[in-house]
Amino acid sequence: MLNPHFQKLKTAYIFPIIENKLAELQKDHPNQKIYNLGVGDVSLPLAPKVAEAICAATQEMTREARGYGPCGGYDFLKEAICKNEYVQFGISPDEIFISDGANADISCLQDLFGENASVAIPEPSYPVYRDATLLSGKKLVFLPLTEEEGFIPRPPKRLSANSFHQDWKQSFSLGSLSSTYTSLSKLAPVSRKSSKEKIFVPSGKSNSQTVSKERVDLVYLCTPCNPTGVAMNKNDLEEWIVWAKENRCILLIDNVYNAFASSDEIPPSIYALDGADEVAIEIRSFSKWAGFTGLRCGYSVIPKTLHVSELNSLWQKQIDIKTNGISYPIQKGAEACYRPDVCEELQEQIATYQMSAKVLRETLITHHQTFFGGENAPYIWWKTPDGMDSWEFFDQLLTTSRIVTIPGSGFGPSGEGYVRLSCFLSNPLAQEAAHALQHHFTTV
Amino acid sequence: MLNPHFQKLKTAYIFPIIENKLAELQKDHPNQKIYNLGVGDVSLPLAPKVAEAICAATQEMTREARGYGPCGGYDFLKEAICKNEYVQFGISPDEIFISDGANADISCLQDLFGENASVAIPEPSYPVYRDATLLSGKKLVFLPLTEEEGFIPRPPKRLSANSFHQDWKQSFSLGSLSSTYTSLSKLAPVSRKSSKEKIFVPSGKSNSQTVSKERVDLVYLCTPCNPTGVAMNKNDLEEWIVWAKENRCILLIDNVYNAFASSDEIPPSIYALDGADEVAIEIRSFSKWAGFTGLRCGYSVIPKTLHVSELNSLWQKQIDIKTNGISYPIQKGAEACYRPDVCEELQEQIATYQMSAKVLRETLITHHQTFFGGENAPYIWWKTPDGMDSWEFFDQLLTTSRIVTIPGSGFGPSGEGYVRLSCFLSNPLAQEAAHALQHHFTTV
Repeated sequence: MLNPHFQKLKTAYIFPIIENKLAELQKDHPNQKIYNLGVGDVSLPLAPKVAEAICAATQEMTREARGYGPCGGYDFLKEAICKNEYVQFGISPDEIFISDGANADISCLQDLFGENASVAIPEPSYPVYRDATLLSGKKLVFLPLTEEEGFIPRPPKRLSANSFHQDWKQSFSLGSLSSTYTSLSKLAPVSRKSSKEKIFVPSGKSNSQTVSKERVDLVYLCTPCNPTGVAMNKNDLEEWIVWAKENRCILLIDNVYNAFASSDEIPPSIYALDGADEVAIEIRSFSKWAGFTGLRCGYSVIPKTLHVSELNSLWQKQIDIKTNGISYPIQKGAEACYRPDVCEELQEQIATYQMSAKVLRETLITHHQTFFGGENAPYIWWKTPDGMDSWEFFDQLLTTSRIVTIPGSGFGPSGEGYVRLSCFLSNPLAQEAAHALQHHFTTV
Repeated sequence: MLNPHFQKLKTAYIFPIIENKLAELQKDHPNQKIYNLGVGDVSLPLAPKVAEAICAATQEMTREARGYGPCGGYDFLKEAICKNEYVQFGISPDEIFISDGANADISCLQDLFGENASVAIPEPSYPVYRDATLLSGKKLVFLPLTEEEGFIPRPPKRLSANSFHQDWKQSFSLGSLSSTYTSLSKLAPVSRKSSKEKIFVPSGKSNSQTVSKERVDLVYLCTPCNPTGVAMNKNDLEEWIVWAKENRCILLIDNVYNAFASSDEIPPSIYALDGADEVAIEIRSFSKWAGFTGLRCGYSVIPKTLHVSELNSLWQKQIDIKTNGISYPIQKGAEACYRPDVCEELQEQIATYQMSAKVLRETLITHHQTFFGGENAPYIWWKTPDGMDSWEFFDQLLTTSRIVTIPGSGFGPSGEGYVRLSCFLSNPLAQEAAHALQHHFTTV
C-alpha cells in the first residue's frame, strides 16, 4: 500500500544533520561566535526595490481581485525572462515555465519520463537529484566526478569521435547496476586504462561482465556546480550536447548559479550553444542571484525543438493538474529584478559574495591548500589535508575555527575527502571567517 | 521513455475550454456584459489587513535576510492554524504541513502510496482527483454520486452493520475494473436492487461476474462539495469513519470550502468526529475563505495517530526532498487571517458570497427549478430542465442570459444533466445575474 521507494532513502539528508550539530554547539557555547559556511543560503537582505514591487502588487490586489493565475506563470514574467536571458538564443516565452523554485522542477520534471527510464546524475551532487530519482522508482545511474578531471562531468571514456557512443552505454550500464543509492556502497572506485576517469563497477566483477545495452534517458548536470564550485566551459558543454544527440538523451541543466560565473568561457545558458535546444532543458532560479530563497520563484526552459518534442506540452499538462500557479506578488517581484536600477542592486550583492569567495580562496592559497571552485560559483570545494575523511575534517574545523562546513561525503561517496564552504557571506564576515581559518592553520 | 500515464488523460480539462468559449464570446460581442459564474475563483479584493501583513513581512526581509524556511511551513503559521482550527480536536502543530495550496496536496499526497494502491474518487468531482490519480499510475475507482442520495457520497450498499465491509469491496471492485477514465465511457449506470445507489458495472456483465477481493486504499471525499454544493453532516461522515476503520483505508478529506458551511450539522473539520484521527487526512486552504487563490497557501493535517502511522513522517520526507518551503511573506499573510480584526473582514466577504448564493437560489426556487447546494458551499448544482444535456443547457444559458456556467459532465459522467453555478460574486453582480436568469426564464 505504501510507496515502496521511500525505503530506498537510506541516506539521511545532510543539511538537517548539520543544522542539528550547529544548534547543539550554540547551546553548549552560547557566547562563541560560529561562522556558518554550511548551508548555501543567501545572507544579504532582500533588495529594497524588489520588496517595493512585491508590496505594490499586493496592494494592487486590495483594489481589484486577482485570483488564479496561469499555472505556468504570468506572461509578463515569462516575457521579461525571455527578453533578458533567452531571446538571443531563439527561446520564446511559451518555452518558459515559472515555478516556485528550482527544487520543485529538479524533482518533478523527471515525472515526464516513465518508471522504466534511466536517470544519470553526477556524484557528488545536490542530494535532491538522487533522492527524487529514487522516490520516482526510476533506474539511478551515477557519474562519479574526479579530481583528475577537475570535477567536470564528462561523457564516460571517449576513445574516438566515432566510438564513444557505444562506450558510454557500457560505462553507464555499469553504473546502472547500482540502481539504488544503498547498493552504491558495495561498489569500489576502479581506474580504467586509457582514461583518467574513474567509474564505479561492482567489486569483484570485471568491466566486460557487466555490459548491457540499457540506455540512459536523462542526465542531470549542474553548472556552475553545487557542491564543487566549478563551472563547465563551452567545450565541456558542447561535448555533452554532441553526446546527447547521438544517444537520444535529454540533458537537465541545473544552472541556478549562473549569475556567479565571472569567466567569459562559461556560457550564460546552455542555449548559447548550437544544438542545445534539441537536447537540453534548463532550470534557473531567482533564489541565488536575486535573494529569493525565502520568496520562492524559479523557472524551467523546455524548448519545443527538443528531440522529445512532447516534453513542452506534457509539462504544461502536468502543472495544469498539479499546481495552481505561483503567487502573483512574488512574480511581480521577480519581474522587477530585470529593471536596470534593480539589476544594479542585485549585481552589487553578487559582487559582495564574489569578494567573500576571493577572501576565503586567498586564505587557502596562502596556506597551500588544494581546493576547487569559488571563482565561478559561490562554493569552495576544499580537499581535506592528510587524507582526513570529510567528517573528521568537519569536526576539526569546527573545533579549531568555529567554521561550519558541509562534509563532501554528504553529496555522494566521491565527495569523500572534501568539505564544501559556502561563500554567501558579507565581506566583513568573510574577513572574520578568514581570520578564524588562519587560527585553524596555526593550531593544527 | 515517456511517462505512459499521460496517455490516459483523454478528457480535456474543463476550465480552459470554458475560458476559450468566454474569450470567443467577448471577442464577438465586445459590448455585451457577460456574467461569469463559471470558474470558482474569488472576486472580492484581498482584505487590506492581510495585504499589510504581507508587505510588512516583505519589508522585514530588506532589513534582515530571511532565506529558506522549513519545508513544511513556519511554526508561527502551524501554531496559529492549530490554535484556531484544531487544538480542540487534539491535533498538534507537527501534524500540520503548510503548502502552496490545496491543489498540490490533493495531487501529491497520494504519492505516499505505492503504484499498486487503489484510489476511489466521487464522481462528479474536482477533475484533479481523477487526473492526478491517472498520472500516478494507480488504480482509479469511481464512486458515482446520485440525485437520489442528494449527491452525498456513501460507502456503497449497507446490508447490515456487519456485512457492508464485504459488500463495499464488491461494489468498489466493480468500479475498479474501469481503471482508467476512458474505460468508464464503456460503462453504463445500473440500479441495484435493495439500494438506492447506482454503481457502474461494465455493460453486458452482471454484478456477480465482476466481483473481486481487491481493496481500496485511499478515498477522496470533498465536503462542502465542489461541484455539487452539498455538505456532509456528522452522520454522513461518521459512516465513512466507521467504514474506513473496518476496511483499513485512508480518507482524504478535501475541506477547502468549510468557511461556507452555515449549518450546525456540518462539522468544521473531520477531526471533530471520534476516530477520524485514525483514518483521515484533511486538506484545507486559505484560497476561498481568505481570498488567497492568487497568493497560494494551504495545508494538510496528517495525524500521527493514523492507522498507517508512517504517513506523517513520509510526507515530511517527501516535502523535504521536493520543495523548499512556502514564501515567507505569504505565510505571514496567512497567519494574519486569524487576527480577530482580520477574521471580521474575512467573515464579511464570506457573508457577501453567501448572500449572492441566496439571491441566485431564490431566483431558481421562484422558477421551480431543481437544484442542490448553495447553502453550505459557494456552488449551486442546477439540474437541467427537460432532460437537456449539460452542454446544450450551457449554450442555451449563455445565449439567453449571457451567464457562463460549468457543464456538469465536465466533472464526470454522473454530472451529466447538471450545470454548476459559482456564487463568488459581489451582491450587485449577483442581482444582475439573477435578472439575467429571469430574462432566461421568460425567453425559453
